[in-house]
Amino acid sequence: MFEERISRARSRMEELDVDTLLLSVGADLPYFTGYTAMPLERLTMLVLPRSGDATLVVPALEAPRIEERPEAFTIQPWGETEDPVAIVARLARRPARAAIGDRTWATFVLGLQEALPETSFLAASRVTGPLRAQKDAAEIDALRAAARVVDSVALAMRDRPFAGRTEADISRELVERMLEGGHERANFAIVASGPNAASPHHEPGDRIVEVGDSIVCDFGGTMAGYCSDITRTFAVGEPSADMIDLYGVLFEAQEQAVRAARVGVTCEQVDAAARSVIAAAGYGDYFIHRTGHGIGLEEHEDPYLVSGNATLLAAGHAFSVEPGIYLPGRCGARIEDIVVATESGPERLNEAPRELAIVG
Amino acid sequence: MFEERISRARSRMEELDVDTLLLSVGADLPYFTGYTAMPLERLTMLVLPRSGDATLVVPALEAPRIEERPEAFTIQPWGETEDPVAIVARLARRPARAAIGDRTWATFVLGLQEALPETSFLAASRVTGPLRAQKDAAEIDALRAAARVVDSVALAMRDRPFAGRTEADISRELVERMLEGGHERANFAIVASGPNAASPHHEPGDRIVEVGDSIVCDFGGTMAGYCSDITRTFAVGEPSADMIDLYGVLFEAQEQAVRAARVGVTCEQVDAAARSVIAAAGYGDYFIHRTGHGIGLEEHEDPYLVSGNATLLAAGHAFSVEPGIYLPGRCGARIEDIVVATESGPERLNEAPRELAIVG
Repeated sequence: MFEERISRARSRMEELDVDTLLLSVGADLPYFTGYTAMPLERLTMLVLPRSGDATLVVPALEAPRIEERPEAFTIQPWGETEDPVAIVARLARRPARAAIGDRTWATFVLGLQEALPETSFLAASRVTGPLRAQKDAAEIDALRAAARVVDSVALAMRDRPFAGRTEADISRELVERMLEGGHERANFAIVASGPNAASPHHEPGDRIVEVGDSIVCDFGGTMAGYCSDITRTFAVGEPSADMIDLYGVLFEAQEQAVRAARVGVTCEQVDAAARSVIAAAGYGDYFIHRTGHGIGLEEHEDPYLVSGNATLLAAGHAFSVEPGIYLPGRCGARIEDIVVATESGPERLNEAPRELAIVG
Repeated sequence: MFEERISRARSRMEELDVDTLLLSVGADLPYFTGYTAMPLERLTMLVLPRSGDATLVVPALEAPRIEERPEAFTIQPWGETEDPVAIVARLARRPARAAIGDRTWATFVLGLQEALPETSFLAASRVTGPLRAQKDAAEIDALRAAARVVDSVALAMRDRPFAGRTEADISRELVERMLEGGHERANFAIVASGPNAASPHHEPGDRIVEVGDSIVCDFGGTMAGYCSDITRTFAVGEPSADMIDLYGVLFEAQEQAVRAARVGVTCEQVDAAARSVIAAAGYGDYFIHRTGHGIGLEEHEDPYLVSGNATLLAAGHAFSVEPGIYLPGRCGARIEDIVVATESGPERLNEAPRELAIVG
């Protein structure tokens, strides 16, 4: 699998005239090698030339954690008084163009630029983004398995009490349920209640949930390396007529965007599908973010469903569809599912009920 | 506090002839503003000119999380179809020299270099490292409070059973105890047993601890923003004569390095103090990492106790002192405390017993 992925990366390097791929922290490295760099001040970097052998430069004290795999890479450990940037620069052999991992720390980018003054650098996602975006069957199975866990959490929450609890307490419950469900890591658990729900990335806090609130729960984690991400909105007690109206619009917008997510459609068309429903209902100014993001080894990756992105959806693209409506100082709502584009149409991986759930 | 820190940063910018400081993910931004950037593909960046007002460029959907603080910065939210790199470049006003946060993602570094072709970039730690390294009294109190928690965990472990449990199970216990002790986050909990203890950054796994093993437990987390980090080695049952010898050497090396950590001594002298004891006993080839790292808002920050670092220790410097001896395929041991350099000599923040504990 890794060999095949590396070979596809090399084809793309050829297309983009990239001589060397330099991968450090982030998901590119595990995608191509199975190994994840520790996000530390000691540099870990894969040097992958367009032809020839790949080398993983790693701190000597981390080398024992890594299995040498000659088909993918050999290991070059560096000692505490060596300069890893100089080692990478030497292995890279003065490339004219090098693609460097998007999340590589600035210190290492600047160091490599100094060590390789003739080289022009571009972001590695230009090479790796389109490869990683198109998931194979095993990757989609992994995303589906992760989605099932958060589906079951979302479903269980419909029977749970909300009123009288803090947002932080409900957030902790979401985290625990994701872990109990088999996630190896909970990545986030936004619980935004009442007026806080107007802040899409609200940090769950001490606010106590009250009857009459609507509550946005947006949570996800990682299982077998792949991410989950779901949002459901709950109403504590009978929702107001305004919320019922707003939610109806949102529900329709999400539905239309999912239906639009067909192979061959542009990413921005999917965004427009959600946005036009919301705008037509008069809420256009209150949908303040893009409609979705790709998902896989990372919570957010290519392709992004955003105005200006003319990338065509292809079979195997996996992404969130998550319109929201946010009325500042008042309330908010969001509905999110992970969707895969397939030759036979968009397939939702999340199946937890998405109607506005009335909770206690 | 933030105003005073920003003013010190500006003095250093003056010294280094830096026109603009650009801070994104990592600990510099919270150090100067109290706000932590979300580590996402949407850019958050503080633009801090040497003179004039600072501006925090943030994704519009994160703006509600942030309190505007005109004494420190004003907020400039950007919408989903805007280009945040262009906004930062405009605010930076073509600096000749810009210092950019060490952990800033490569994509943003490359984008800013393209947008500001006349600007030379350096790593922000050149400006911020020395400031952050020297802790004030409140910061040392925070480090001490965090150290007390891991001390109590280390102490409790002396009475716990080890034999028959997996490393992963013991690691989970360390995490739970740190959280119960008041840490808001556990950052790591290395448990390396038997031959695995020869790998300093071993990932705790399914190996079942046996009588006769020695076990390195290295764990830390975050409390009120500041980090803890401690290592203790445990022997399951009576240790072998070899382990007693090795541990005696290590104990003496750690003791000598702590004593060496006086104001005015270089970082590399502290490293040498530990290394010379270990080398004299014939274990020189088996101490494969530096003696320590600074600690504060980050687990690893300036100053690093490593050969080649001629930085002079100053009052308020806080760092780990953690020599180790690792015999490949056989065993390993490490002792680590956090130490603060003060005018009246080195002060250990960790006080859990550091003699080799015999456990069941």
